[in-house]
Amino acid sequence: MAEEDNLSAVLYGPGDLRLEQREIPKMADNQLLISVHTVGIGTSDVEFLKRGTAGSIQLTEPIILGHETSGTVDAVGEKVTGFKAGDRVALEPGIPCHKCSQCMIGKYNVCPDVTFFASPPYHGSLTRFVVHDANFCYKLPDNVSYEDGALLEPLSVAVHACRRAQLKNGTERANSRSRGMMPVEIRDAVVKSLGHEPEVTIECTGAQPCLESAILATRPGGVLVMVGLGAPRIELPIVEAALREIDIRGVFRYASCYPIALDLVASGRINLSGLTRANYDLGHTLEAFERAEKGDVIKVFIKCQK
Amino acid sequence: MAEEDNLSAVLYGPGDLRLEQREIPKMADNQLLISVHTVGIGTSDVEFLKRGTAGSIQLTEPIILGHETSGTVDAVGEKVTGFKAGDRVALEPGIPCHKCSQCMIGKYNVCPDVTFFASPPYHGSLTRFVVHDANFCYKLPDNVSYEDGALLEPLSVAVHACRRAQLKNGTERANSRSRGMMPVEIRDAVVKSLGHEPEVTIECTGAQPCLESAILATRPGGVLVMVGLGAPRIELPIVEAALREIDIRGVFRYASCYPIALDLVASGRINLSGLTRANYDLGHTLEAFERAEKGDVIKVFIKCQK
Amino acid sequence: MAEEDNLSAVLYGPGDLRLEQREIPKMADNQLLISVHTVGIGTSDVEFLKRGTAGSIQLTEPIILGHETSGTVDAVGEKVTGFKAGDRVALEPGIPCHKCSQCMIGKYNVCPDVTFFASPPYHGSLTRFVVHDANFCYKLPDNVSYEDGALLEPLSVAVHACRRAQLKNGTERANSRSRGMMPVEIRDAVVKSLGHEPEVTIECTGAQPCLESAILATRPGGVLVMVGLGAPRIELPIVEAALREIDIRGVFRYASCYPIALDLVASGRINLSGLTRANYDLGHTLEAFERAEKGDVIKVFIKCQK
Amino acid sequence: MAEEDNLSAVLYGPGDLRLEQREIPKMADNQLLISVHTVGIGTSDVEFLKRGTAGSIQLTEPIILGHETSGTVDAVGEKVTGFKAGDRVALEPGIPCHKCSQCMIGKYNVCPDVTFFASPPYHGSLTRFVVHDANFCYKLPDNVSYEDGALLEPLSVAVHACRRAQLKNGTERANSRSRGMMPVEIRDAVVKSLGHEPEVTIECTGAQPCLESAILATRPGGVLVMVGLGAPRIELPIVEAALREIDIRGVFRYASCYPIALDLVASGRINLSGLTRANYDLGHTLEAFERAEKGDVIKVFIKCQK
Repeated sequence: MAEEDNLSAVLYGPGDLRLEQREIPKMADNQLLISVHTVGIGTSDVEFLKRGTAGSIQLTEPIILGHETSGTVDAVGEKVTGFKAGDRVALEPGIPCHKCSQCMIGKYNVCPDVTFFASPPYHGSLTRFVVHDANFCYKLPDNVSYEDGALLEPLSVAVHACRRAQLKNGTERANSRSRGMMPVEIRDAVVKSLGHEPEVTIECTGAQPCLESAILATRPGGVLVMVGLGAPRIELPIVEAALREIDIRGVFRYASCYPIALDLVASGRINLSGLTRANYDLGHTLEAFERAEKGDVIKVFIKCQK
Repeated sequence: MAEEDNLSAVLYGPGDLRLEQREIPKMADNQLLISVHTVGIGTSDVEFLKRGTAGSIQLTEPIILGHETSGTVDAVGEKVTGFKAGDRVALEPGIPCHKCSQCMIGKYNVCPDVTFFASPPYHGSLTRFVVHDANFCYKLPDNVSYEDGALLEPLSVAVHACRRAQLKNGTERANSRSRGMMPVEIRDAVVKSLGHEPEVTIECTGAQPCLESAILATRPGGVLVMVGLGAPRIELPIVEAALREIDIRGVFRYASCYPIALDLVASGRINLSGLTRANYDLGHTLEAFERAEKGDVIKVFIKCQK
Repeated sequence: MAEEDNLSAVLYGPGDLRLEQREIPKMADNQLLISVHTVGIGTSDVEFLKRGTAGSIQLTEPIILGHETSGTVDAVGEKVTGFKAGDRVALEPGIPCHKCSQCMIGKYNVCPDVTFFASPPYHGSLTRFVVHDANFCYKLPDNVSYEDGALLEPLSVAVHACRRAQLKNGTERANSRSRGMMPVEIRDAVVKSLGHEPEVTIECTGAQPCLESAILATRPGGVLVMVGLGAPRIELPIVEAALREIDIRGVFRYASCYPIALDLVASGRINLSGLTRANYDLGHTLEAFERAEKGDVIKVFIKCQK
Repeated sequence: MAEEDNLSAVLYGPGDLRLEQREIPKMADNQLLISVHTVGIGTSDVEFLKRGTAGSIQLTEPIILGHETSGTVDAVGEKVTGFKAGDRVALEPGIPCHKCSQCMIGKYNVCPDVTFFASPPYHGSLTRFVVHDANFCYKLPDNVSYEDGALLEPLSVAVHACRRAQLKNGTERANSRSRGMMPVEIRDAVVKSLGHEPEVTIECTGAQPCLESAILATRPGGVLVMVGLGAPRIELPIVEAALREIDIRGVFRYASCYPIALDLVASGRINLSGLTRANYDLGHTLEAFERAEKGDVIKVFIKCQK
């Protein structure tokens, strides 16, 4: 690897994002060295830049931003099999501890010791080179672009939300039309629009009136999945949820969803080409973040190769 | 059936409970005529007598109270098999519609058209004779008393709560000590007392501080079962529940739990003899309710045979 | 109802199918009288005509054949709500007992007391008029044809097979391409073709070499769903299945699948127009059965209206 | 660590077990060095000594036997937290790869790359000192003896079998008496003895007549768990299993079961004191194996400390 340029987008505090050279990290024997190609800007990246926080997570020291990532394998750790230099890959951004009880039963998304790109104090991927555990890298088939590879991150959240929505016995397929990401306004409107109470409601705003409507609208024995997060504390008609046994389930990132998201894209069952997008290079990261906040396109990408 | 006395405890309004003769109901061909032996007084019975309401259910016309019931088969409907006069039975108080989507997938406890003893406008079992669908009657082995038979009703709620608590992958047995009906005070005390965060928390008070502590104390990926119901609207740290994927599940009555509760008692794995109790006869129903409200014994029974 | 013609296709024994007038059955108060429109010929219908048996079920007295059914509501029982004369409907052919433990937990497909069209001694739907429990009739939207309505029956089997295939934790979507109804030939060919061991294998032949290959090819911890049924007794590498924890699950009919199948068709997510088909009228039932056995079209329909 | 004696029981081939000195293995930074205290002799140990094989696993080079293990922490790897020298521990014998799709969803017992004590080519624990990953070591409370610690291994198999038996909707508790490890003889005897068909049958012999009876005896929609393993290929009435939807599930070792087994013993809910046992020291390993094969006690232990 002759490349020594490792320009990185480092956040020092709210509004203080600096482009600077950082040392290329050392690869462990179970890791890959990745030449980052495309990074999508996500909501938490924007939050960190604006406020230095996202949810309850605080910036405590300067970190490199970025967590929706695709790139090319540049070097392969000694114990890694199945990868070679030149492979195009998507990077699942969180490496769990593999040891806690959550990890041991497959719920590694709620591992308390996860190392996650751009979640302080861990660095992200808005840089020329990153190292990453090989078993959290996924080879991209030829028909999946680098941009699609970066989009596997938010798509994995959607996959996880759908999994969390699944009822054990339920007539889930019958009601899939009711699972759209519609804003739930009021119970009656929902029931009128669907012709029946939804068995599963996926609430994506986090706003109190929407969550309350979702509890009231969902069928007895059904499920309310909370994807959107709003105010940390909310008043809810919790007795109504209990009496009709509406299960309330949150969604935090994803576990074992990248392979599914990749398959959905590679097989053509999900077509991402309809998402409006804009491209910037790493040297114009600040403009890219401004564009992301402007919101006139659905996704802003940053190209990290020189 | 020579018996024509059908003394019944009829609630006309808050505080207005009258003992009066009612016609013995007509048995359909899939039903049993039951000579009621023992009825336990439950929380909702007391609520109806005091306020004319329980939860969101309102008394609209006079109804017979009582829903925790055991008795003896007096006559058998034409299409019924497996029962004969003289059989000792416990009565599961709710008859679902068998037709709605909840019934069809086995969640008949949340059937919107259920007919439930002493849930207005349906009559209960504080009377000499009731009719009941045979497939919601359970024959009592010799070693299960009439009082135990009546106690199968609240025990079925506990069985259902335990089922609702079950995690798909979870280390459920490892944490069963943490499943006690303890009041959850504060997160730190809970974790200190258990040595770890509980995987399942069964909250039995319905009070806001307890529910909040339960969300904070439960392990990531765990389950909070709400058994106790308090104020209809409560402010909760719902984002915290979402980020750590604490599933929130209510408990409403039970479905397919009577056979389990009966087996637990009949096999001796649950011993109900430690419950303090008091007995009254149907003619002294008002005194029985006063005793139930006094609360110096765990269960008050009313004997309904002449 | 002025109509008194109730021509019916009655099977008296192997090869002995007679068209004869039968009395129009009496409708109970929870039933609909249906003017049958379209009946698809299924495998078991053909088996009964050829051999007088299907699996372990034997013809013991003459029965009307046919179980894949759509039609029009002609009259509505007194206690039925939600239907009116003229409604176009599909008929789920099995009415379970609603009382056994299987029914009570939602697995009504394995109810031992189910009454199922054309499963001896019960009559089927190859007739002008049938009566059927209203809650096993499904109203067809305008964009779902009578033929599609009859096809909901085999489609419900497919829906049920997919449900049975579902893994609790699994990466089910990632492998959906491996779930096709492909004949599983040998383990190596399967793995080579997919690029990996399938997590779920749906075996549709019932032949011993295919079942054995399916056990060997499926991923550890995966699921083998048996849709096809062949010889009643088969030698299998059962220790191999145990050591790699391949769950083996059969499929028998369906439970709560008609609404899902109907939604799949009505929403256009499944398009049945590609199935080749042929049409006969009730008077030409024998020719229709010959065509079904010839097998040059995927489905043969019989039109039962005069 | 002054101790340099590392006497080990090494199997060279069928019947050829030699006691010899082996080098004390090097501890990695995530491992513990364990002074082995007690090793129980398991069925596979006996099989390896008699035949050089167990199931499909073949001895290919000399290995140390033994996999049911408890001991004392002697030294702690640099990255390990929560352990100190002197801690009494039980050792879960299999270390999975943490990378394959089975591991990632919590089914690490079927990881194809697991490293398991005394499963060729990996060494076991019949030696003075072993190293083991700290997160597969479990601290024993004072009331759990070293022998009980070694017994956690077979107890974990039982825990896993019970988990595999669990029905999603089922009335599992009602039928627990039918889950005993009884030999299933014939369907009628089973049903007569229980009073009904069991919902779950745990078959522990692996013999063909027993497996066949288990399929015939289990309730429709129920589960047959195969704990016992017999001949590798068996003829079964697989169509009968399919038509009644009897799920067939194997049991291979365990995953996330050690904490549960430990809690069952530590809490007193399972009392192991009734198991007859015999003790030998490491220098008398051959006599211990002879005693294990004789079978007059349930468990033979070998004490490995000098």
